[in-house]
Amino acid sequence: MTKKILVINPNSNPAVTEGFSDAVAPLRLAGGPLIDCITLEEGPWGIESQEDADRVVLPLRDLMMARTDADAFVIACYSDPGIEICRRAVPKPVFGIQESGVFAALQRGQRFGVIALGPKSIERHLPYIQRLGIESRLAAERPLNLSVEESESENAFPRVLEVARELAEKDFADTLVLGCAGMARHRQKLENAVGLPVTDPTQAAVSQALGTVLLA
Amino acid sequence: MTKKILVINPNSNPAVTEGFSDAVAPLRLAGGPLIDCITLEEGPWGIESQEDADRVVLPLRDLMMARTDADAFVIACYSDPGIEICRRAVPKPVFGIQESGVFAALQRGQRFGVIALGPKSIERHLPYIQRLGIESRLAAERPLNLSVEESESENAFPRVLEVARELAEKDFADTLVLGCAGMARHRQKLENAVGLPVTDPTQAAVSQALGTVLLA
Amino acid sequence: MTKKILVINPNSNPAVTEGFSDAVAPLRLAGGPLIDCITLEEGPWGIESQEDADRVVLPLRDLMMARTDADAFVIACYSDPGIEICRRAVPKPVFGIQESGVFAALQRGQRFGVIALGPKSIERHLPYIQRLGIESRLAAERPLNLSVEESESENAFPRVLEVARELAEKDFADTLVLGCAGMARHRQKLENAVGLPVTDPTQAAVSQALGTVLLA
Amino acid sequence: MTKKILVINPNSNPAVTEGFSDAVAPLRLAGGPLIDCITLEEGPWGIESQEDADRVVLPLRDLMMARTDADAFVIACYSDPGIEICRRAVPKPVFGIQESGVFAALQRGQRFGVIALGPKSIERHLPYIQRLGIESRLAAERPLNLSVEESESENAFPRVLEVARELAEKDFADTLVLGCAGMARHRQKLENAVGLPVTDPTQAAVSQALGTVLLA
Amino acid sequence: MTKKILVINPNSNPAVTEGFSDAVAPLRLAGGPLIDCITLEEGPWGIESQEDADRVVLPLRDLMMARTDADAFVIACYSDPGIEICRRAVPKPVFGIQESGVFAALQRGQRFGVIALGPKSIERHLPYIQRLGIESRLAAERPLNLSVEESESENAFPRVLEVARELAEKDFADTLVLGCAGMARHRQKLENAVGLPVTDPTQAAVSQALGTVLLA
Amino acid sequence: MTKKILVINPNSNPAVTEGFSDAVAPLRLAGGPLIDCITLEEGPWGIESQEDADRVVLPLRDLMMARTDADAFVIACYSDPGIEICRRAVPKPVFGIQESGVFAALQRGQRFGVIALGPKSIERHLPYIQRLGIESRLAAERPLNLSVEESESENAFPRVLEVARELAEKDFADTLVLGCAGMARHRQKLENAVGLPVTDPTQAAVSQALGTVLLA
Repeated sequence: MTKKILVINPNSNPAVTEGFSDAVAPLRLAGGPLIDCITLEEGPWGIESQEDADRVVLPLRDLMMARTDADAFVIACYSDPGIEICRRAVPKPVFGIQESGVFAALQRGQRFGVIALGPKSIERHLPYIQRLGIESRLAAERPLNLSVEESESENAFPRVLEVARELAEKDFADTLVLGCAGMARHRQKLENAVGLPVTDPTQAAVSQALGTVLLA
Repeated sequence: MTKKILVINPNSNPAVTEGFSDAVAPLRLAGGPLIDCITLEEGPWGIESQEDADRVVLPLRDLMMARTDADAFVIACYSDPGIEICRRAVPKPVFGIQESGVFAALQRGQRFGVIALGPKSIERHLPYIQRLGIESRLAAERPLNLSVEESESENAFPRVLEVARELAEKDFADTLVLGCAGMARHRQKLENAVGLPVTDPTQAAVSQALGTVLLA
Repeated sequence: MTKKILVINPNSNPAVTEGFSDAVAPLRLAGGPLIDCITLEEGPWGIESQEDADRVVLPLRDLMMARTDADAFVIACYSDPGIEICRRAVPKPVFGIQESGVFAALQRGQRFGVIALGPKSIERHLPYIQRLGIESRLAAERPLNLSVEESESENAFPRVLEVARELAEKDFADTLVLGCAGMARHRQKLENAVGLPVTDPTQAAVSQALGTVLLA
Repeated sequence: MTKKILVINPNSNPAVTEGFSDAVAPLRLAGGPLIDCITLEEGPWGIESQEDADRVVLPLRDLMMARTDADAFVIACYSDPGIEICRRAVPKPVFGIQESGVFAALQRGQRFGVIALGPKSIERHLPYIQRLGIESRLAAERPLNLSVEESESENAFPRVLEVARELAEKDFADTLVLGCAGMARHRQKLENAVGLPVTDPTQAAVSQALGTVLLA
Repeated sequence: MTKKILVINPNSNPAVTEGFSDAVAPLRLAGGPLIDCITLEEGPWGIESQEDADRVVLPLRDLMMARTDADAFVIACYSDPGIEICRRAVPKPVFGIQESGVFAALQRGQRFGVIALGPKSIERHLPYIQRLGIESRLAAERPLNLSVEESESENAFPRVLEVARELAEKDFADTLVLGCAGMARHRQKLENAVGLPVTDPTQAAVSQALGTVLLA
Repeated sequence: MTKKILVINPNSNPAVTEGFSDAVAPLRLAGGPLIDCITLEEGPWGIESQEDADRVVLPLRDLMMARTDADAFVIACYSDPGIEICRRAVPKPVFGIQESGVFAALQRGQRFGVIALGPKSIERHLPYIQRLGIESRLAAERPLNLSVEESESENAFPRVLEVARELAEKDFADTLVLGCAGMARHRQKLENAVGLPVTDPTQAAVSQALGTVLLA
């Protein structure tokens, strides 16, 4: 029977879900697992604060517990909200896009830089990186000072590139992570422009799920 | 054009290459990249010492430089010999099975344990883990005290399970890595028996390459 | 108006609550805040697994949000379940007994040792210590291999002392933490017998709350 | 018999002693221990260099050894001069205000920021934080570029607030420590203005001593 | 028989070799070992990229293997190219100037600052420091933004001093390392001007070799 | 004028002083600095506790301040008693044998093991290694369970070798340090027997002083 990866957008904005569903399209292969991107209906319109993130933990967990048809789960919000509670609640592998993103980036360079939306995001990310135990390999996080919507637009590219160059030149990053679920469209272009590997976290997490599911 | 992942066995024993070619078979999908497992002719019969590992670095690099047809490379020896030099020598992504293995395992638990062949292997792995910057998440490495050949055999399973249980019970590991390229056959069975996620490093690295190549 | 510290036992066993209510009695002073020890009705009879711990997070948070009469909260379970979510949910200080216990112990010595109930507890504590960022100061955790009830009994003292001595002599700990909410009765006696400072975590957290409330 | 906490100002300026005696007044409770703040006569007028700090170590130790009437000691200088030598010299608990201050702050947030007097102070604090083993949780120290006297004045508040905001906004600190013994008057006001928990180190250390003495 | 320390300049510019041969002249003592500074003929004119560094690894190793007359080796390029492979290839001690330089500096202060040529150098140094396991003691690296040749000239001194002062005042370094093989001429003068110990890495490595050879 | 290195034995046992004076004899060269080994008269007969170590700090400092004829100092006790206070008290370089010993060992291998006298020594060493910031590179310390005198005797060699082998085989150390000032006589023999580099700490510190003095 065809296996299934369930990628859950913890906010309730379906445009975001569609965005990353497109971004992971190349991972949908004949004979491979379904990659189903869904929107958490109980989620807020956008996850902008820790409070927003906390509020989706239980709905996420309940959704995973209900979806026994899934073979792996991806939490598609860069805060990885509820990742540990979900991992303990279901017997299937659960991936978080921040965790998968930074581990993928660390396989392409020595010191990773993160392009974050703004200071509030960085504030949430830094303790998580310390908890992952990899702070010695973080070059820096730098803020775009853009909203989620702005960051997804083609128009944001010059600013994304500017921040990427600062991470490379001032913080000595040699591998970059896009620090939000909706910036995949900039990945390839940024990689070409800045000359460093760039990781989109949702793509990274779904790749990780893909391999895990194929090998189970 | 079909993309290609080149998985290189740095020792010259073709039986080892065949072994992991089988192990990664589930990652070969219609429409997906070729996963080509080859044997480094210049390699020693087995990589048992640091000297053996050092000796394959340049042949590996030269092979990668020559194989411009490949879209990603995997070094299929748990020492990850030459990984940095190779990364700098070719513009394509290069993955090492130890690095991919431990990062994959860290996405399935908090503290990873490694089932190594013997003390000599552990001696080589520990400084590498310190260099990866993740020593705070290592529970322990424990030796099987078996040769490569012995570790690959079905008969080794009871010993593998014994060591896995020690890692779980004495070192408080909650996620395990098979610390050699040839133990994939034990993975699923061990996972079932010990009740913890078990990562095969070659499978993990080829999965990582698969995702990267599909998304490039 | 008299201030109030609410000490919450996340399990539903009132004997445990009474036990630590007695243990913190010396912190109840004329003119000082009330120290109110209560039992979480929704809690399991004992918190013995991570699942048990996860299950009390939301009831704990809801209780704190409801108790606007409290000036500080203490989560009196050594796992510190839900500490971050609770901290973000209420504007009052929230203390966890593991966190307060180890920080208090680190003010009495260089390397702390923890006397844990059993391997399952240690498995939960170690990642938390890594997250607190103080793993370089942990000497070791060692298990009593006793149940919560057994550990609280006077009869457990010889075993507690035995483990304390191992922590001192084999792991070079010079300051000790009792790794469960119910072992306060052994504190002073153990300190005298082993000759090292011994910290009871509930006492430590309530002390921390006491100072914070008095100074607010 | 009433217990006694001896808080020692290692400099010989009695105004400083009076200042923090006032700051810890809320910790003096009916039935609780005496909190006696004294001035080290042999101390320099102000501790401004490492040399000043070194010079008070032995007088501090001798004073503690002589004061057998005390049940706990607090060294009320943010350098924690002589803390280890004193700890080994007397059987009573000895607290240092830097150590207590940062551990208290770490119970109110994930990443602590320190408001220091000037670069020379930071130079002394940073190695100490590395020694405490908690550098992974330091957001940053930033200098006021004020003298001790200036920092204590009401007039300093706008500058203190400015630095606090930089720690929050540029360094992503979510919990703050006042990095000198004489800034307690700014604590509550700063907490209100900046919206983050602010710890006064002398208050933190005396609180720690209070709990310890009550429970002994 | 007189012992011999072989100091190898991995680039092929003999002026560089002469420069550091002069710098280590005070270490040549009657009755002490010869200190022979040689130029690697196969080396590039200057080692300016990681690729340049990688290319000299095997020639360095082969040279060491051939020079059985030497009692110790020093790799006189701040990247320490090939240090581990060389160490495993020959039974004699092998020293790298970066490693010896930073360890010597750490014996003169708490937090070391490195005066690097430019951003590209810093990019190579930082991962190495992480690997040495001493990143908690690095204050910072700052770039001169000068070429190797420029950095060696007397005229560079004002710029070297400027960067040294930034490391002291902004990054709180209390011990400095000259981050390239050719800046020894500035060492004493800089030490006097900035008032902090300054370590020349080639001198440090040859000193280390001197002691080792004398004691063998 | 001939320069002078003053090596101070902080205990008052002249036999110990003679012992290491012999051990550093190969570092006395024609034209090189005098290496003067002296005994601290105020020291205890042996430094066996932290209290013993603390008590010599001021006499050591005063001796250094008085000896303006010296160009560098070595504190020849593996606890490095008073190293920081001495460093701040005199303008000349001050070396400690533990610090120099472990940094020298780290230039000969990846993970260092320490052969200590007994558990009490290890208890003092471990926090110091954490403070040096190099705990990620410590394989282990293991006790001889011998007194200072016993450890110096030729008869101790079999026990020293046994512990060295445990450090190599069980803890995966690849470079060893003799953890006391008086074991130099075992160094070369142990290196031959165990096949790993062995560092004598007094020799290491005096070497470091030698280079520093020659280059000043």
